[in-house]
Amino acid sequence: MIQAIDHIGIAVADLDEALAAWSRLGLDRPVIEDVPEQGVRVAMLPVGGGKIELLAPLSPDSPVGRFLERRGPGLHHVALRVDDIEAALAEAEARGLELIDRQPRSGAGGARIAFVHPRSTGGTLVEFCQR
Amino acid sequence: MIQAIDHIGIAVADLDEALAAWSRLGLDRPVIEDVPEQGVRVAMLPVGGGKIELLAPLSPDSPVGRFLERRGPGLHHVALRVDDIEAALAEAEARGLELIDRQPRSGAGGARIAFVHPRSTGGTLVEFCQR
Repeated sequence: MIQAIDHIGIAVADLDEALAAWSRLGLDRPVIEDVPEQGVRVAMLPVGGGKIELLAPLSPDSPVGRFLERRGPGLHHVALRVDDIEAALAEAEARGLELIDRQPRSGAGGARIAFVHPRSTGGTLVEFCQR
Repeated sequence: MIQAIDHIGIAVADLDEALAAWSRLGLDRPVIEDVPEQGVRVAMLPVGGGKIELLAPLSPDSPVGRFLERRGPGLHHVALRVDDIEAALAEAEARGLELIDRQPRSGAGGARIAFVHPRSTGGTLVEFCQR
């Protein structure tokens, strides 16, 4: 059911600074998009078949804004690519995982996404992502 | 130079509990290996061309043990696959990134690895990994 690591989400306070740092790491072809429903500006950096997803808050009281205040900048979530997100969510719930989103919502790049609570994964915020 | 996301490193306190959680997420073919040089037991979970790497400390004063004490369990590092790790390190240093390892060392699965300091990447511990 899980096909690949789709992307790694990284919370950043300053998108330009983060893009400069990742450019020094060799990833310098960002695709930038605002996702107002989630209160973030997203910069996707393609790498192989996956992506690094830099997430800058559009406001301090957005989920990423609160994460930055609590934890500081850094790794935020891991997204697993699935071919059928409704089936993945049903299966995850049947196996006792705690869903943050019981229905998929819209993510960057037109993806359909849903999150699993870190309480049930041993501390990691996991996203299912269908493209 | 960067070919792909090789793996995501996740710090866990209890490897069996973490393996059970990731099995519920659909990743249930772990390859387990002790890496005493780094003070960790590693469980690699293949997913597509990449891997989820669960890291359990062999002792509390190992780097992962100290990470767990400071931050709790969760996302620890992102590893970028390179075809020439010496060249990747030289290029990263030339571009002003701060290296933790100036020379590659041995990682799980026979990989050659080296870390870049999160101070210079905007808060994310980044590994270069050559297989």
